Amino acid sequence: MIKTPYLLFLGDAPDPLAAKVAQGINDWRPDNAVGQFRLPECGHDLGIADMTLAQGLEAGAKTLVIGVANRGGVISPAWKEVLIEALNMGYDLASGLHNLLSDEPDLVEAAAANGAMLHDVRIASEDYPIANGQKRTGKRVLAVGTDCSVGKMYTALALDKAMQAKGLKSTFRATGQTGILITGHGVPLDAVVADFMAGAVEHLTPSNDEDHWDIIEGQGSLFHVSYSGVTMALVHGGQPDALIICHEPTREHMRGLPEYTPPSMQQVIDAALPLARFGNPACEVVGISVNTQHLSEEEAVAYLAKVEAELGLPAVDPYRHGADRLADALAAL
Amino acid sequence: MIKTPYLLFLGDAPDPLAAKVAQGINDWRPDNAVGQFRLPECGHDLGIADMTLAQGLEAGAKTLVIGVANRGGVISPAWKEVLIEALNMGYDLASGLHNLLSDEPDLVEAAAANGAMLHDVRIASEDYPIANGQKRTGKRVLAVGTDCSVGKMYTALALDKAMQAKGLKSTFRATGQTGILITGHGVPLDAVVADFMAGAVEHLTPSNDEDHWDIIEGQGSLFHVSYSGVTMALVHGGQPDALIICHEPTREHMRGLPEYTPPSMQQVIDAALPLARFGNPACEVVGISVNTQHLSEEEAVAYLAKVEAELGLPAVDPYRHGADRLADALAAL
Repeated sequence: MIKTPYLLFLGDAPDPLAAKVAQGINDWRPDNAVGQFRLPECGHDLGIADMTLAQGLEAGAKTLVIGVANRGGVISPAWKEVLIEALNMGYDLASGLHNLLSDEPDLVEAAAANGAMLHDVRIASEDYPIANGQKRTGKRVLAVGTDCSVGKMYTALALDKAMQAKGLKSTFRATGQTGILITGHGVPLDAVVADFMAGAVEHLTPSNDEDHWDIIEGQGSLFHVSYSGVTMALVHGGQPDALIICHEPTREHMRGLPEYTPPSMQQVIDAALPLARFGNPACEVVGISVNTQHLSEEEAVAYLAKVEAELGLPAVDPYRHGADRLADALAAL
Repeated sequence: MIKTPYLLFLGDAPDPLAAKVAQGINDWRPDNAVGQFRLPECGHDLGIADMTLAQGLEAGAKTLVIGVANRGGVISPAWKEVLIEALNMGYDLASGLHNLLSDEPDLVEAAAANGAMLHDVRIASEDYPIANGQKRTGKRVLAVGTDCSVGKMYTALALDKAMQAKGLKSTFRATGQTGILITGHGVPLDAVVADFMAGAVEHLTPSNDEDHWDIIEGQGSLFHVSYSGVTMALVHGGQPDALIICHEPTREHMRGLPEYTPPSMQQVIDAALPLARFGNPACEVVGISVNTQHLSEEEAVAYLAKVEAELGLPAVDPYRHGADRLADALAAL
């Protein structure tokens, strides 16, 4: 659990892409960010208040979140100075960088001296149990993809927002680094030891009110040969009542696998549903989320209509058209 | 890689079950064991030469393998004395115990002083790559189960033995603790970090001669909600050309999951084959291995005949009747 609200450290981010994590926090959990801290060289602006570390503290910030990717995997001296000052002023630090805060002796020392926490969300910081498969109360929906990076996190966050707007009970459950930083908690599933993956997902999505939905961020794809085991652990550990199939229709090969053509949405349904039903016989596929960013509006509308007709399920691009119809499909279950 | 041959440490094992690992080594790789070392209280005998540590060294032993489960998860003072003496005499130590040799300061110290290795096969001692899914040369067969502990390791070892007896090229590839101790190498897949599971299996089963078979030990089951992610990583990382379905017909519920009835063999085929074919379009199910230990000979023969008729695949119990027909099915592919 990372203490909120945050001050967002943008460092010397040259552009929006480099500040993707900060952008995600500001888009999805604006209440989690009191402001942004930018170095003079920073080329991006989230459009929220610029604050010094002292101003951030005054505004209530508890954690300085590194919302930017670092170049060359090195935490630069310019960053270091700010991070150590923040620890000395009473901030915790949180980061999704590949190189860990906890591997930097000067940060470890400053954190210890100030009783501050260093949150590296790329590593599993808890011991998770082995999954027991026991039926839990409450409802769960899982985003499953035809490939990696097709918009599963975005779909889950948009669905959570649409559910809340309708007055329905829901919680976004993060299973990856960005999602964990956005919400302040979750399980970094790809960093969990194999035996405990499904147990970590059970732990993340405990029993709840009967009318409460956990919206579980998906990872990988059952058909992505590098990461399918992680996806499988979500299908069983998540015990989903509903699946949403996520797809990006212009991709020519699977991410990182030039020899592999992505599966069809029907292939994903045919593979995922029997396995999911073994853990939860009531599981249904309730909708399709298509990432149409590489299509024109006209092409996107036509593609969604075609998918909807072929699969007999609501098909939306939550970025273009919102996730309302997916929320309605869940509410109708 | 654990140095062979071994001297097998049986300690104070009260019965054959406690000495299961030593028994497995002696059954499947008798050349890997020069003899057994027993404490006076030991109630089991492998039927091989009793040796002192000095006699073991003379016979060529390089590693003292703890072939026995310890009671209460504690390495007793009586064991400790022998283990430290072995390190001082030049042995490496290897263990599949839950409590690690490397967590015992006196063993760590003695190993360091003597330049000896402590092999804890429950932890991953290598950094594995992320799977790249590239097509490898040579053939691979994977044992997949309807449940955990249905005889996948036994099936793979028996198949390897039958292949060798027919003059075919094969290598048993261990993915669990006992298999690793039996053969001296392998990947402890359930201890690998999620992102690297499939890559670890690729690493274990590299390109080879076109007529060489890797016989990959299976883990878990695609339908075991606690461990299905591990199985999935084998189905994709192993890139199998052939699957053998392993089943135990008298089991009333899945191992450790009292609420779950095991799936049928057909369910396992229907789930595994499309996923396996995504990694290797040529993959076929070639046979069924049934663990009939709880059936009489007559019941077993009748059950195997029924399965064979229903599924149209050779069905054998390799323990009762050998794995020859499975080896023939592979050779015929």
